[in-house]
Amino acid sequence: MEALRAGRRLHEVVLAGGRTRSAELDGIAAAARLAGVTVRWADTGELEALAEGVRHQGVVALAPPYPYVGLQQVACGDLLVVLDGVTDPQNLGSIARSAEAAGAGGLVLPRRRSAHVTAAAEKASAGAFSWLPVALVANVSRALGDLGGVGFWTVGLTAGAQTSLWDSPLLGGRVALVVGAEGAGLSRLVDERVDERLAIPMAGRLASLNAGVAAALVLFEVRRRRLALDREAGGMPQD
Amino acid sequence: MEALRAGRRLHEVVLAGGRTRSAELDGIAAAARLAGVTVRWADTGELEALAEGVRHQGVVALAPPYPYVGLQQVACGDLLVVLDGVTDPQNLGSIARSAEAAGAGGLVLPRRRSAHVTAAAEKASAGAFSWLPVALVANVSRALGDLGGVGFWTVGLTAGAQTSLWDSPLLGGRVALVVGAEGAGLSRLVDERVDERLAIPMAGRLASLNAGVAAALVLFEVRRRRLALDREAGGMPQD
Repeated sequence: MEALRAGRRLHEVVLAGGRTRSAELDGIAAAARLAGVTVRWADTGELEALAEGVRHQGVVALAPPYPYVGLQQVACGDLLVVLDGVTDPQNLGSIARSAEAAGAGGLVLPRRRSAHVTAAAEKASAGAFSWLPVALVANVSRALGDLGGVGFWTVGLTAGAQTSLWDSPLLGGRVALVVGAEGAGLSRLVDERVDERLAIPMAGRLASLNAGVAAALVLFEVRRRRLALDREAGGMPQD
Repeated sequence: MEALRAGRRLHEVVLAGGRTRSAELDGIAAAARLAGVTVRWADTGELEALAEGVRHQGVVALAPPYPYVGLQQVACGDLLVVLDGVTDPQNLGSIARSAEAAGAGGLVLPRRRSAHVTAAAEKASAGAFSWLPVALVANVSRALGDLGGVGFWTVGLTAGAQTSLWDSPLLGGRVALVVGAEGAGLSRLVDERVDERLAIPMAGRLASLNAGVAAALVLFEVRRRRLALDREAGGMPQD
């Protein structure tokens, strides 16, 4: 449904007919027809096969390869996320969903040694990839240099950082948040390249947060500060 | 490893031998022997069977049924999480992991129509359930009443709320955060019972965040404010 709302190019929408047919699926069929996309009802067996192991909830869209964009097309907003070796498609999808919800202008992924926008990642994103542009880059460290050149402050999330997320004075401007691999964290070159390293102050016994959760905490901290700054600038009453 | 560190009762630890054997698995074996737990090396086929579909990473622990506690045993701290119909074990595990990391004293689950602490939930929690006590209750609404009676401010997370998470003045005391079902949100009785309803201010086109991410944002907002209050009280310099 998000792909249709976003006007994304789709070859075909295949829905579960028979007893699994529902009002929700009928709604998706109507939206697809309105968008000029071919609609077909199939049995569950065919849907399972088309979904290739991804939980499909009664609907599968066949689409052209994901339309990646260039780095300059994700760098037009004030907030973006750069992934440095995140290989789990669930984490990629989760981060995309939170990034879109926090108002990020895009996502940057390395061409190699990274999860990409596959069906599993799209499912985990709850449709975010239909709205959030994604750029593939050959070299994350060089991309951070390019982003720095157009005014982005690059911030790396890393458990060993001295500065707490909440103490960083620098999240008010253009921010590129860099999230490292599950377990290993930021690669050495990227760790050396970022302008600032931040940690999330933990209280319990576990050593780390889920990568998607950690990214969301930074993204919404940026959003919290933006709203506070907007409110100060606009003189809107705090209700 | 978290179960061993926490001193949890385990029947047996079964590890992948042969070519999949690693220094990390050797470390777990040593920790298990120190804790007096039986250790056994097995082939991957047996591990797969023992793991019952959960990704095992080369180690499975056989444990007695999860040791749930009573409501009074999770209500000893200043922060706890109450789930109202979260049925996805991944979301349950994710919320437990974030709750533990944010310093919550426990988790409350309804006995019926809820995910429970299964192997899948434990895996998703990254070991949090070995540290975080969990209470099962027959009735969430009544449990909220009981928690209110011992000084907890009950806060429901709901997309339609008027108050933003960041504007709530009341997250400084004892807080019980109530998280509803994926999609449907809080049940009617629970929605009527909570002291306050909060929403996370979204910026994008998607209608909702992942339940685990939304819960983490509230949990760490509570932690952010606690640290700020502690700093004010202690007069510690802001570095």
